[in-house]
Formats: sequence, structure tokens, C-alpha cells
Amino acid sequence: MDEEHTCEVYVEWKKKKKGIISFLDDKKGEIEFSVPPEFMGHQHIVTPEDLFLSSLLTCLDAYFFNMAARTRLKFTSFRSCAKSKIVPIGPDYIFSKIDINVYIGVKDERDAHKAERAMNIAEKGCYVANSIKPKVKVKKHIKIEKKED
Amino acid sequence: MDEEHTCEVYVEWKKKKKGIISFLDDKKGEIEFSVPPEFMGHQHIVTPEDLFLSSLLTCLDAYFFNMAARTRLKFTSFRSCAKSKIVPIGPDYIFSKIDINVYIGVKDERDAHKAERAMNIAEKGCYVANSIKPKVKVKKHIKIEKKED
Repeated sequence: MDEEHTCEVYVEWKKKKKGIISFLDDKKGEIEFSVPPEFMGHQHIVTPEDLFLSSLLTCLDAYFFNMAARTRLKFTSFRSCAKSKIVPIGPDYIFSKIDINVYIGVKDERDAHKAERAMNIAEKGCYVANSIKPKVKVKKHIKIEKKED
Repeated sequence: MDEEHTCEVYVEWKKKKKGIISFLDDKKGEIEFSVPPEFMGHQHIVTPEDLFLSSLLTCLDAYFFNMAARTRLKFTSFRSCAKSKIVPIGPDYIFSKIDINVYIGVKDERDAHKAERAMNIAEKGCYVANSIKPKVKVKKHIKIEKKED
């Protein structure tokens, strides 16, 4: 990405404490959201805090996928998890420190080093992490996975 | 919400530059995401920046829905839009200022004042806005809508 890139997102209220998110490109589909149950909203529907952690985690992971492609790293598996708390600060709330765990499977020692390096670069470059106030701690779990015969 | 509230989000890599987001409560379903096309990812799939703006916009709107319920404001329509740019800062990128437009329909002058006040409180209390670095500018468009006979 060499130039500025614009992003636009829409919300439309549906009923009670629910709404629908849509995007400039309508082929991206829609996401239903709700006020969290803790704020007397609905159960089993994505909340603003789910979306906040999702944006951070996918940004980090997407950066890693890009670095992997650029360095020709072929990882065999990848999963990650982000965890945080919403804590009071005066009359309001903020996100506390965010803990991320990343689990990457690779085929040999050489790729394990490549994966470590790619994730270090992703941590530094992640534009969501660079745009938020809470501290982000990334713990990497890189494992050499035996090929199944 | 009187106490700390924990949030947890998962990503699993699917193929190439795509992945799936899931949540602690698996009844919330899954969201597919991709590296943005600008970073040589895929077209027509939700990106980390879509999720970032979604989290901010839904947090503001959810806060407003809560304030409306608390003050017994019955709005007749509600939609909103968030817009931002990802801009370079040295070798990395960050989100620039975020512009939000909110369109609220109400039935009379009294509710128009209530809606204005509820949105002012939502702006101050929005915990995503309080957790991010970019400036957030909210422009309110409150309109008295005639009831259709």
C-alpha cells in the first residue's frame, strides 16, 4: 500500500438494542450487532468489544500472512486469540491491556525462525495496534509439526 | 455494568490470506476476514480496518440506544456512518481522524433535545473512542419526522 486508503462503515438501527453493520462494498455482506448483555442488551450477538478485539487480532494476523507470503514461509497451521477487559476509569470505561497468543505450526527449524521474524515485523507494523491506547502483549507459540504420512 | 468485563476473540487461518473470526460464545457465529486488496489480499471480504471502524461506530450507537432506553426517548429512525483513512507514519501506518455522521429521526422538538443530549453522553462514554488514539468527530443530524397516516 503506497497511498492513503479510505475506509467507510455504516450502521442501521434495527429494533430495540440491535443494529446492522454494512460496508462501502456491499458484496462484503452485513454483520448484526447488539448492545452487550452486561449493558442490558441481547445474548448471542456480536458486540462492539468483540469487533474491537477482532480488528486488532485480524490486523496482526493479516500482517503476518503478508510477511509469510513475502518471505515464502509456508506455515502448516495458524490460530490466535486476543483477550482483554473493559475496566472503569472514573465514570467511563476503557479497554485494559490486551493479551494475544499466536500458535503457528511450521515444518522445520528454518521456517520456525522465519515465522518468529515475520510475527515480530507484524507486531511492529500492525496499524490497529499503532492506533490504540491499551498495551498489546503478543506471546508466540511456534511448533515444528511432523508431516503425516 | 458494575464490574470488569472480559472479552475473548479467536482467529483461525483458512487459506492464503483469509481467516475466520470466532467468539467465546459460539452462538455468535463466525466472521470471515481477509488481508485488504490494497495489501494484495482478497476482494469483497471484511478487512481489519472495516472491523476497527465497526467497533467504534457500534460502540457509540449502542451507548446511544442505551441512553434512549434510559430516558424513554422513542426515536423513529437511526443510521450512522464512520469514515477514516489509513495514512503512513514513518515506515508504518495508522488511522487518521475519524469522521462520524449520525442521522436520528424523532417525532417532536422535545425528543430532538433528548436525542441530542443522549448522543452527547454517548460520545463522552464510548469506551472504544476512549481506547483509541485518532480524534473522533461526531456530526449529529436530528430531524423531526412526520408520522405517516
